[in-house]
Amino acid sequence: MKNNIKSRILKLAKKDVARIEKAIERNLQNEKGIVADAAKYIIFSGGKRIRPLLMILSAKLCEYKGENDALFSIIFEYLHNATLMHDDIIDGALIRRKKKVANKVWNTRTAILTGDFLLARSLSVAALMEKSEAISVMAGIMENMAKGEIEQLKRQRDITLSEAEYLFIIKCKTAVLIEGACKIGAIISDAEQKKIDSIARYGYNIGIAFQMADDLLDYTSDTSVLGKEIGADLKEGKLTLPLIYALNAAEPEDKKKIETIITNKDFSEKNFNMLLKLLHRYKGIDYTRNKAKVHIKIAKKALEIFKDSDTKEILNLIADYSMLRKS
Amino acid sequence: MKNNIKSRILKLAKKDVARIEKAIERNLQNEKGIVADAAKYIIFSGGKRIRPLLMILSAKLCEYKGENDALFSIIFEYLHNATLMHDDIIDGALIRRKKKVANKVWNTRTAILTGDFLLARSLSVAALMEKSEAISVMAGIMENMAKGEIEQLKRQRDITLSEAEYLFIIKCKTAVLIEGACKIGAIISDAEQKKIDSIARYGYNIGIAFQMADDLLDYTSDTSVLGKEIGADLKEGKLTLPLIYALNAAEPEDKKKIETIITNKDFSEKNFNMLLKLLHRYKGIDYTRNKAKVHIKIAKKALEIFKDSDTKEILNLIADYSMLRKS
Repeated sequence: MKNNIKSRILKLAKKDVARIEKAIERNLQNEKGIVADAAKYIIFSGGKRIRPLLMILSAKLCEYKGENDALFSIIFEYLHNATLMHDDIIDGALIRRKKKVANKVWNTRTAILTGDFLLARSLSVAALMEKSEAISVMAGIMENMAKGEIEQLKRQRDITLSEAEYLFIIKCKTAVLIEGACKIGAIISDAEQKKIDSIARYGYNIGIAFQMADDLLDYTSDTSVLGKEIGADLKEGKLTLPLIYALNAAEPEDKKKIETIITNKDFSEKNFNMLLKLLHRYKGIDYTRNKAKVHIKIAKKALEIFKDSDTKEILNLIADYSMLRKS
Repeated sequence: MKNNIKSRILKLAKKDVARIEKAIERNLQNEKGIVADAAKYIIFSGGKRIRPLLMILSAKLCEYKGENDALFSIIFEYLHNATLMHDDIIDGALIRRKKKVANKVWNTRTAILTGDFLLARSLSVAALMEKSEAISVMAGIMENMAKGEIEQLKRQRDITLSEAEYLFIIKCKTAVLIEGACKIGAIISDAEQKKIDSIARYGYNIGIAFQMADDLLDYTSDTSVLGKEIGADLKEGKLTLPLIYALNAAEPEDKKKIETIITNKDFSEKNFNMLLKLLHRYKGIDYTRNKAKVHIKIAKKALEIFKDSDTKEILNLIADYSMLRKS
């Protein structure tokens, strides 16, 4: 079923993804120098263009009449990659999408400036929309992403992190950007407020589901498929929902075991395998999967006000796929 | 004369500077947490608010009728401080405005995110202007600042840096922001294009003069007045106009001496004093001062199309002051 959904999405979205790719290439083609090289390195490292695609599909759903949807959509790929650039420095990550992170290929300073360059570039495209509301949405995205990252840092290896606090972090770090991409797709289409709100709700909820699925991968995938180390989140001290739930559900003795592993930066493979067993025993994996499903349901529900179309079908498929993906 | 000009500017601009201060305080008052603390640390560390002031004055000169000039002006203080945050990490600076740099009080990650937060905040204020042209100007500023910084890094300790290349760097790093502040002041006033262009030219040229004066301070001030180490630019490998000119004018033997000092990260005080002598001997200081004067003249000339007013007087005084300042 997983592969069916994926191939159906790929087939239906193929043309739009190609248009996004072309728009990015065109926008960067005249850029030379170190920052441009580093920007291209991350931008063309195999991202799936899901954020720009969602903007384009949202615009289509809201009957966008213009010709600039592909151009505008790259705002979200730039924003996303700008924060990846800065986050990889901050998190001390080594690998991203199966490649060395940019701050290791170049250095920290280049990565900081490349992030800034991509933010600037996203803004210069955003100015072309001539929609102040869209600029506000962008500002909100950027502010939330910075706040989410700092909150995450603050709570590194903090075993008291609650589910609500985890939700706040993934909202800021992931959902707000996807919500914003969908919302701006509706805004540039001059959609009525009700439609803007609905597509925003769709985006927010698949964003949450998407991040929960991502957090699950850290415990259920393997390194070669994932493109980064399994257990990497935990190594960085990030507590995610499977762990938070298991910690709360565990018997005192097991709880202690989990805590010991979390607070030890250099846990062994044996430690990690034990942790996996405990996560399963206390239903941390199941609970997270079910929560993600709830968000997918809300997302699909939000689409109901739109009339049926191919576009709506892809959006529904993407909702399903958001928690089926393997990498 | 220097003190007369300064006290006259302070007197004439007092109310506007107070309005800027209030607008910043109000905009940040509800912000809590580490990023907010770091943002406030740099924002309230004694900056002279020259960029927001120039926006307000430009708006006045163009007969701005609205009530949001002080609010909009903080965009430029945020942009400026965001880049200071990132640049201080990149340059490995220790002191800024007589205080420890933020990335030493907190750490690199906090400083990166605080810079991003300030960029986001500047954008959220900018959205309120409801002027796409102003957003484009902002994007241009951000892009130039990133490119200027990377160019500067690339050319560290590069004795072949030409005067034109130096000009490109200070344009990107300093002049474009001041030009943008002035330009946006005119844009929010719905000024005619000729006026927008003139005030932009004023801003650009005082920006260049301002940076040249700043670069002179590295060789002519002393540490206690400057608020950072004298010779700090050179320690960071930044070649500025006094040095570039002297290098080109020097006899082969002296040229070699200068080169040896530039390429040695750990030059001694004795080395530095020798360098100062050579800069004077080969007129590097005089040449730079004269160049700055030319830019001030162009800036003042650009104001001639505006009718006389108190505002025009302050702008002329600021032009004069831009190269008289001591810190």
